Amino acid sequence: MKAKVYITPKAGILDPQGLTIERSLPALGFEGVSNVRVGKYIELELPGGGDADAGDKLDRMCRKLLANPIIEDFEYELIEE
Amino acid sequence: MKAKVYITPKAGILDPQGLTIERSLPALGFEGVSNVRVGKYIELELPGGGDADAGDKLDRMCRKLLANPIIEDFEYELIEE
Repeated sequence: MKAKVYITPKAGILDPQGLTIERSLPALGFEGVSNVRVGKYIELELPGGGDADAGDKLDRMCRKLLANPIIEDFEYELIEE
Repeated sequence: MKAKVYITPKAGILDPQGLTIERSLPALGFEGVSNVRVGKYIELELPGGGDADAGDKLDRMCRKLLANPIIEDFEYELIEE
């Protein structure tokens, strides 16, 4: 089973990468772009087929390793094959 | 108009972050996870409402700044408000 994980900095947390992108865009001819937030996008393959607790497993995986729940939010999507 | 950009390392390109996650998961009790690929997830706000060429603009933005098209693939999604 495939999974996609989207990790974003929590609202209010400083995002230096996003700020840098936002400040660089006008010099490249892209005016007015705002609220740039840079997070992580992780694709992975979970073992087994229709594992009923795959979502629960992935949730724990995010909390323990993939994301930092203190400063980051995460969402995930499970894709049955 | 909001946009979401998903950037992934191209197939065949070494992904050290992904490998590190893959090797760390068994120690945390998650066995058998494979094909971990770590990319970037960017949210941003484009100026103007129903700008017809917003997709084209975003595509150029990805090629010029957000992604490195030599080693990364990107996809994006535009969200009308």
